[in-house]
Amino acid sequence: MTVVMDAAQMNAFLGKVFLEVADEFRVEEVTETGVTLRLLVQNRHLRPGGTVSGPAMFGLADVAAYMVTLAHIGPRALAVTTNCSIDFMRKPAAGVDLLAYGRLLKLGKTLSVSDVLIYSEGTDKPVARASLTYAIPPAGVDLPHA
Amino acid sequence: MTVVMDAAQMNAFLGKVFLEVADEFRVEEVTETGVTLRLLVQNRHLRPGGTVSGPAMFGLADVAAYMVTLAHIGPRALAVTTNCSIDFMRKPAAGVDLLAYGRLLKLGKTLSVSDVLIYSEGTDKPVARASLTYAIPPAGVDLPHA
Amino acid sequence: MTVVMDAAQMNAFLGKVFLEVADEFRVEEVTETGVTLRLLVQNRHLRPGGTVSGPAMFGLADVAAYMVTLAHIGPRALAVTTNCSIDFMRKPAAGVDLLAYGRLLKLGKTLSVSDVLIYSEGTDKPVARASLTYAIPPAGVDLPHA
Amino acid sequence: MTVVMDAAQMNAFLGKVFLEVADEFRVEEVTETGVTLRLLVQNRHLRPGGTVSGPAMFGLADVAAYMVTLAHIGPRALAVTTNCSIDFMRKPAAGVDLLAYGRLLKLGKTLSVSDVLIYSEGTDKPVARASLTYAIPPAGVDLPHA
Repeated sequence: MTVVMDAAQMNAFLGKVFLEVADEFRVEEVTETGVTLRLLVQNRHLRPGGTVSGPAMFGLADVAAYMVTLAHIGPRALAVTTNCSIDFMRKPAAGVDLLAYGRLLKLGKTLSVSDVLIYSEGTDKPVARASLTYAIPPAGVDLPHA
Repeated sequence: MTVVMDAAQMNAFLGKVFLEVADEFRVEEVTETGVTLRLLVQNRHLRPGGTVSGPAMFGLADVAAYMVTLAHIGPRALAVTTNCSIDFMRKPAAGVDLLAYGRLLKLGKTLSVSDVLIYSEGTDKPVARASLTYAIPPAGVDLPHA
Repeated sequence: MTVVMDAAQMNAFLGKVFLEVADEFRVEEVTETGVTLRLLVQNRHLRPGGTVSGPAMFGLADVAAYMVTLAHIGPRALAVTTNCSIDFMRKPAAGVDLLAYGRLLKLGKTLSVSDVLIYSEGTDKPVARASLTYAIPPAGVDLPHA
Repeated sequence: MTVVMDAAQMNAFLGKVFLEVADEFRVEEVTETGVTLRLLVQNRHLRPGGTVSGPAMFGLADVAAYMVTLAHIGPRALAVTTNCSIDFMRKPAAGVDLLAYGRLLKLGKTLSVSDVLIYSEGTDKPVARASLTYAIPPAGVDLPHA
C-alpha cells in the first residue's frame, strides 16, 4: 500500500497534536511495509528492577498502530483505538530504548487493523506483540490543532 | 472464592512494592466477587480534550487484574501480565475519576484470568472492558521489597 | 437496555437465516441483562477424550454475541464478527451441553461489543470467556432469507 | 529457530492424533520462519452466501498455531490453546481454499505464542489475523494415540 507521509512529517504531526507524548516517541522509518517507532525510554516508563512497564509498552504499540494508519491516510487527529490485544512475551532489556514495528493489515473506510512487534534495541527476540483496531474519523472533521 | 486480603492490606502492599504508582491507584473495596480500584485521575493521565488516555486505562485494568488475583493468593510482588485484550467503548467523562471492577474467572497454579469493567465515576455505562492473564510466580520467590 | 425480541423469536430467526447451525443452538432465555444460549453438544463438536473442541466453543461464543446484539436491535441477517478474544480456562465436562451467557456492553450505530461466559451445564466455574465486536449493517440492507 | 519436524511428519501426526480433522487440514510447508497450513474448504465450513464461517477460520488459526509450535518442539498430543485473539478483516473468496501462515513468536517451557495470517488462496490481502497462546504439556505425558 502506498504511504503518503514520511518520518519527518509524522514527527512534526506528533509534535503538533500529541504534545504530551512527542518527547517520548520518534518515528524512525516509514516504508510501504510498515513504520518503525522508538520509545525514548525515561524514568517514568520504568517499573521496579528497571524494566519498561506494561502501560508504556501498550502506549508504544498504540502510537505505532496510529502512525502506520496515518502513513496511509495522511494526518488525522481524531482516530481512536477501539480494541487492542497484547502479549507480553519477554522482559525488556534494561537501559535501552524499545523499537516497535507496525504493519497495516487492513485499511477500511471506518476502521484500520494493524499489528505491532516490540523489541529492545539491539536484540532479535520480540518482547511484546500487539494487534489494534482504529476507528478512523470521516475526513474533514479532524486536525483541530493543525 | 475466598479472599485473603482486604482493601487496607492491598493499599499498603501497593505502597510498598509499587511506589511509582501508589499515588495513582486506590483499592476501594474487596469482596468475594471482585475488587474495585480507583484511578485518581491526574494531568499526566489526560489526552487533548481532557479525556483519560488509553495507556492510563490499560494501566488501571492491569492493576485491577493484579489486585483481584492477589486478593485470592495473598501478596506476591512478581506476578506479570502475559496477555491483555481491551476494548475502548466510550469516551471517559472529563473531570472525574475512573473506577475499575475486577473479577477473577480462573485461579490456576501458574496463571490467573480476570476481567475488568471500567466506568467514569457516577455513570453506569462502561468506558472500557478488558480481560487479562497473569503469570503467578511460585510462592517464596517474591516480595523482594516487603 | 430494552430488548425487542424474545427467545422464541430468536430461535425462529436462527431457523430461518442460519439453517446450517439451527440444530446446534437454542436460545434459552432473553432478559434485559443478557441472553442464555445452549450448545446442543453432538459428536461433531468433540475432540479426542470427549471434550468440546475449541472451534465449537468459539462458535457458541460467536452466536451468543450475535443473539445478544439482535435482542436489542431486532432481526438483521448480515451482522459480522470483526474481532474476538477468547480464553479457554477449563476443560468442559464430558456428556453435557454448554451454556453461554452473553451480555451487551455497548451498542453503537455501526458496532456492538459483548462479552460471554461459557459453562458446562450444571457446573459453576466458567470453561471459557470471550469478548466480541460485531459490525452492524445499516437497517434495510438485510434479512435476505426472511 | 530450528525446526524438528517437516511437513510430511506433521501431516502423519495430524492423521494419528486428530483423525477428526485430518481430512480438513494439510501442512503445505515448514520453514524456520513458519508453517503454511491449508484448509481444504468443504460444505460444512460454509455460511450462507458460500463464505467460510468464523468457526472454520478460528479452527484453521488454531491448528496453524499448534503446528508451528510442534515444528519446534516435536510431536506432543496434549497441547491446549489457552487464549486466542482474532480479527476478521475481509470476506473470504468463494470456491477456494484458505491458507494460514503461522509464525512462532515465543517458545517458553510451558507456553508458546504464535501469530497467524489467513488468506484466500490466490489473493494477497489477509482475510483474518490471529494470535494464540498454547500451554505446552511436560514432555513424556503426551502422545496417547501414537
